[in-house]
Amino acid sequence: MNPLQNRQVFLASRPSGIPQADHFGIRTVPVADLREGEVRVRNVYLSVEPAMRGWVNAVGNYSEPVAVGDVMRAFTAGVVEASRRAAIAEGSWVTGMLGWQDHAVVDAAKIDRVITERDLPLSTSLGIMGINGVTAHYGLLTIGEPQAGETVVVSTAAGSVGSCVGQIARIKGCRTVGIAGGETKRRLCLDAFGFDAAVDYKAPDFVDRLREACPQGVDVYYDNTAGAISDAVTDLLHPGARIIVCGTASVASWDPPPQGPRIERKMLVSRARMQGFVIFDHPEHGPVARQALAQWLREGKLRYQEDILEGIEHAPDAIAGLYRGDNLGKRLIQIAPAP
Amino acid sequence: MNPLQNRQVFLASRPSGIPQADHFGIRTVPVADLREGEVRVRNVYLSVEPAMRGWVNAVGNYSEPVAVGDVMRAFTAGVVEASRRAAIAEGSWVTGMLGWQDHAVVDAAKIDRVITERDLPLSTSLGIMGINGVTAHYGLLTIGEPQAGETVVVSTAAGSVGSCVGQIARIKGCRTVGIAGGETKRRLCLDAFGFDAAVDYKAPDFVDRLREACPQGVDVYYDNTAGAISDAVTDLLHPGARIIVCGTASVASWDPPPQGPRIERKMLVSRARMQGFVIFDHPEHGPVARQALAQWLREGKLRYQEDILEGIEHAPDAIAGLYRGDNLGKRLIQIAPAP
Repeated sequence: MNPLQNRQVFLASRPSGIPQADHFGIRTVPVADLREGEVRVRNVYLSVEPAMRGWVNAVGNYSEPVAVGDVMRAFTAGVVEASRRAAIAEGSWVTGMLGWQDHAVVDAAKIDRVITERDLPLSTSLGIMGINGVTAHYGLLTIGEPQAGETVVVSTAAGSVGSCVGQIARIKGCRTVGIAGGETKRRLCLDAFGFDAAVDYKAPDFVDRLREACPQGVDVYYDNTAGAISDAVTDLLHPGARIIVCGTASVASWDPPPQGPRIERKMLVSRARMQGFVIFDHPEHGPVARQALAQWLREGKLRYQEDILEGIEHAPDAIAGLYRGDNLGKRLIQIAPAP
Repeated sequence: MNPLQNRQVFLASRPSGIPQADHFGIRTVPVADLREGEVRVRNVYLSVEPAMRGWVNAVGNYSEPVAVGDVMRAFTAGVVEASRRAAIAEGSWVTGMLGWQDHAVVDAAKIDRVITERDLPLSTSLGIMGINGVTAHYGLLTIGEPQAGETVVVSTAAGSVGSCVGQIARIKGCRTVGIAGGETKRRLCLDAFGFDAAVDYKAPDFVDRLREACPQGVDVYYDNTAGAISDAVTDLLHPGARIIVCGTASVASWDPPPQGPRIERKMLVSRARMQGFVIFDHPEHGPVARQALAQWLREGKLRYQEDILEGIEHAPDAIAGLYRGDNLGKRLIQIAPAP
């Protein structure tokens, strides 16, 4: 019996809508012995994603929901502390869908990636160099097809995906307009991420300010929120506009779907294109995106913000906190010293 | 002074929503003399389009609205009765945006096309060989990208665009499902246009019947209606589905836009693409589409239905009639004997 103890955050009951702290429990269990072909990973960072709302809900989902009683599904980054798979050496930095727990004993096939960019902090592998950066890169460039001089609007612009979208769009020569909630996040868009303009969706004059920020209309809208924020943006579409549907953070529940103004006429009059995507469908894009992102990071063209909670006991409330807007930047939970 | 008299149907007042008979007037004016570079066309067929609603409204439009007092903008087909432009011979069959009137004296540049397929009836130049057929061909094939074996759903499936979409999809090897209003139109979809299944959106069990007709889900939705019909279709989207937004016939007014269930989550979960288009943006597609359409017509693979009203006095109520669903097939007004 392995003497190591493993703290796990598990789904205690199924939420409808945004999962709250009391939908989760924490338990301590022994760590399983390592079998041939397996590795044991000491998780250092646990990721917290808006998409986790979908992973634990039974409705309107794009993957099987996490079962009640199971360890919460999550991306993690950590260090291989034991290996019975020749291809993965002890001491490797890795990422994978290894769950909210201290130690993960898994078949080596569950390791997404052995990190080769060890000059960058391990935490970046879950944010700008991980699913957030790859999502931003794929959605903006492959679906949005931004052209130099065009206006690109991003919602949740101070967040980990949105801030990356805005900076890539700027690198590509676009005018960038960020939408964020509150003055602190609005300033972050301008000062940290170099948006040409930033608008607070909580301000009473949001619609007017957005219009002022987009004098040429909107060519590309990278949508992380849906809802009323998107209604304001889609009133400004320039002919031939592209809308990338990446997330629906502003809508608390889709069962039943909320009502809003119908969009068909805007789509027709603006000859617009709207497309949804899920990054897990495009594993081939990971290396392509990471090569570009790493280069921009090293050249100082790309910045990122992290919001790191210390200790696994913060996990249960961490998703709800995202939806409350508590975080500034990519939310992680650190549960061991960084390597 | 030219002794010919010209009856014209003009816009008498600006409607909000669907134009009714009393928004138009009929007047008789002398025909203008022909100047160098001009042609005089004897209109034989006047076209009636759902899009005319947009042409006379001031809101949510993709072209300048028709001015009050002007001859109603319309496609027509006719015969050149006098020409002072060498390139266009007297006796030519032509189409153009020549308006709801007996005689059009226009610069030859206003002639869209001199018809070369004189083995096909002149009336087809305004329907299956005109804007309706070209619209169907462009939207389905260029935006919808249907693949053999996929399920293609079309709204207003018994109409001139919808029936053409369904037949082209069938020629491309797709399973075709038509949505139409009432049993007569539903039967027309099956018996005249060869849809694999057809569903009456006015029936109380519409949603269930549609689901039964699409056991594999919906890969391509050619949307001519928007509204509740589209809500039912988009509940059935197969991953990677494409939605072609061609028209919004089921919505009486967009000022303000009506409310409906938000679509963003469906777009995301289904990785779907929705795109609006206006065929006038794609003049280069006309010859491409007509070549294919003419060949299918001559081979007997493509059928069409016309609804021809006799006499210009039917024009004022003709658009409202379309929205009432009075017509079976492409609506035309015949105002002179066919050549």
